[in-house]
Amino acid sequence: MRSMLARPDAERVISDLRALAGYGSCGTGVERRALGIADCESRRWLADRMREAGLAVEIDAVGNVLGRTAHARRIVVGSHTDTVPRGGWLDGAFGVVAGLEVAREVAAHPHCYATGIELVSFSDEEGHFLPMLGSKSYCGEIAEGILASLRNTAGQSLAECMQGLPEATASLARLDTAAHLAFLELHIEQGPVLESEGLDVGIVTHVVGARQDRVRFHGRANHAGTTPMGLRSDAAQALFRCAVAWADACSGLQIPGAVWNVAEASTHPAAGNVVPELGIASFQYRAQERESLDRMAEALASVADRAATLTGTRVSIEPVFALDPTAMDTMMIEALEEQALRLGLRGRCMPSGAGHDAMVLGRHLPAAMVFVPSRGGVSHSTDEDTTPEQLARGIELFARTVWSICSRS
Amino acid sequence: MRSMLARPDAERVISDLRALAGYGSCGTGVERRALGIADCESRRWLADRMREAGLAVEIDAVGNVLGRTAHARRIVVGSHTDTVPRGGWLDGAFGVVAGLEVAREVAAHPHCYATGIELVSFSDEEGHFLPMLGSKSYCGEIAEGILASLRNTAGQSLAECMQGLPEATASLARLDTAAHLAFLELHIEQGPVLESEGLDVGIVTHVVGARQDRVRFHGRANHAGTTPMGLRSDAAQALFRCAVAWADACSGLQIPGAVWNVAEASTHPAAGNVVPELGIASFQYRAQERESLDRMAEALASVADRAATLTGTRVSIEPVFALDPTAMDTMMIEALEEQALRLGLRGRCMPSGAGHDAMVLGRHLPAAMVFVPSRGGVSHSTDEDTTPEQLARGIELFARTVWSICSRS
Repeated sequence: MRSMLARPDAERVISDLRALAGYGSCGTGVERRALGIADCESRRWLADRMREAGLAVEIDAVGNVLGRTAHARRIVVGSHTDTVPRGGWLDGAFGVVAGLEVAREVAAHPHCYATGIELVSFSDEEGHFLPMLGSKSYCGEIAEGILASLRNTAGQSLAECMQGLPEATASLARLDTAAHLAFLELHIEQGPVLESEGLDVGIVTHVVGARQDRVRFHGRANHAGTTPMGLRSDAAQALFRCAVAWADACSGLQIPGAVWNVAEASTHPAAGNVVPELGIASFQYRAQERESLDRMAEALASVADRAATLTGTRVSIEPVFALDPTAMDTMMIEALEEQALRLGLRGRCMPSGAGHDAMVLGRHLPAAMVFVPSRGGVSHSTDEDTTPEQLARGIELFARTVWSICSRS
Repeated sequence: MRSMLARPDAERVISDLRALAGYGSCGTGVERRALGIADCESRRWLADRMREAGLAVEIDAVGNVLGRTAHARRIVVGSHTDTVPRGGWLDGAFGVVAGLEVAREVAAHPHCYATGIELVSFSDEEGHFLPMLGSKSYCGEIAEGILASLRNTAGQSLAECMQGLPEATASLARLDTAAHLAFLELHIEQGPVLESEGLDVGIVTHVVGARQDRVRFHGRANHAGTTPMGLRSDAAQALFRCAVAWADACSGLQIPGAVWNVAEASTHPAAGNVVPELGIASFQYRAQERESLDRMAEALASVADRAATLTGTRVSIEPVFALDPTAMDTMMIEALEEQALRLGLRGRCMPSGAGHDAMVLGRHLPAAMVFVPSRGGVSHSTDEDTTPEQLARGIELFARTVWSICSRS
């Protein structure tokens, strides 16, 4: 069987990654905000590599770059090539370029595989316009009216920025659940677990749900020297007390794998001798079960009310986003486990604490993800890195699993 | 005795205050940053009024405006006419203009008073260059080398800004403890105590000491979704825990009249999905005894260390300023109490939670202060106000006390 003979060329993948990192390079990292100049150039580069690999290429109306083998039924593979500001060279790019390597084999020997490949670099995973814009559009989760209203963080419209990709079609590429069998995404872990446990690969069981609320305490500005303590309405103390009590409450809930973070905190006015009238922060929390997120939200509402009462302030809690957890497909997970065992890789099943395109695809198709270690757990930074050997082991597991499924199906 | 016949003209004081408020007027308030255009114009206006009152006028090398009667020995009265940005019409201006009214009487009947008046509008009480620049210079607390290095918050040097007052002398007016007998300052309370207790006047027993420290927690930035809670070094949680524990510790110390404030708080980087690597805030505290301030500082060091240990962060505490408490003069306080009783005013003795020029003068001369109520306890705001009747009662107490001392001494 051809899939048993095929070998992914990890050196070629790394060489492609280095070439791709030339677009928007930024010290040891890269910066390709979605549909900016460097991102558009990198999409053109990717389309050329897809054509060289023998894939039929499409760039759709939101900037998704797709390369298809001629097969009627296809496994979808890929990730994203856009980055955060001052991002890393691996992040989504690794999954796209490894997907290219996987597609090369299937395109070169189409008759050896019952099922083909649809390789996608999804547009704007990082949310310059909208988080996971490309995969949500691909899965039909965005009404077309919404697309016309999207603007990036610099205020430019999507239509305006799409002029950087004149080769794009006017239509939206769409998932077809009759033709597409599954989705597989290779990615760096973006956390410290695999490295700290000395493992080669992680097989993702689910992408955790995430919510973020903006909490604002409103008090009364007063002179901090002349206003007796009992007559104050201190929005800063309210915020501090709420943040500490919420962290303690989340810890007390003992939800396995749950995480929480209070950030973007500030108090106003910015003067040491004025009792702050405004205290603001973002409260972000992630968990594997929707019900766990509900409990963390209830804890926040409760401690925020208590802090407001205690300090004589008023509180408002405004949701910023709320993403439900997405389970990965059991059969895909088993296929990955079996392949990892065969390759002698040290791995573990684990949740993904970060959001990924697989979270969107997983709502519509059987989906799975493979993680490789992140050096120091660092990502979204120019310091992001993984050794060539670690990358090669991830590519091996990813490619052999996809090829095996394509052979069988 | 002349001082028994003399009556201060409160309407004239309020009319003078309205005229002065025309310099740098700003809605219902005023903005006269020290030695800016409006401040220089207002100093010129004040010097003209002093001359009209028969005082010998000097504008010294830091912008202090002084008006003296011809007496060999003088009581120093006054305050400051500079303001914070978007400040109020009363603040220091009230004490200067009421001092002008007091000086008018003594200058008009010099032979009826054994002791004369030295009326001063001190320069830059609000610290555009240096807090209480004018009174510190007057009391010889600033080495001349320091003056040359002072710059305002816009980066301009003191010498540059003094060009706005070409009539200023090249010398520094100085306190002479042989010639100057005492200092008396009339001021708005800038707090809610007198209004909430329905009182006419406050007699200040001491200006509290104040310290401010800048506290910085240093942690490690990490992805807030993928970094397990146990592997975090969260500078925001460290700051929040420190701020809450310190407020509770200060409260637990049960120091009468002590106040504390955590403000200017922020966490970095400003992203909801990043564990903050930096948490910063100003910790300000005031108390009547130096030893109480020491205890509050010890509490801060202790809770900051504990918060750092608990969160795996590092903490640094950097003093921003430290001002010792200043007691007002017992005999001056008694003279004010006696006069208040005679006038049938409802008043109380109280500390001043805010700093004043009297704090500086009080280190060198017997000093005292009289407070009138602040509407809603508000000051350093264009909303700052006090009713004409309340102003009049304060003027009455202030003027009669000064005249009585001038008659006797």
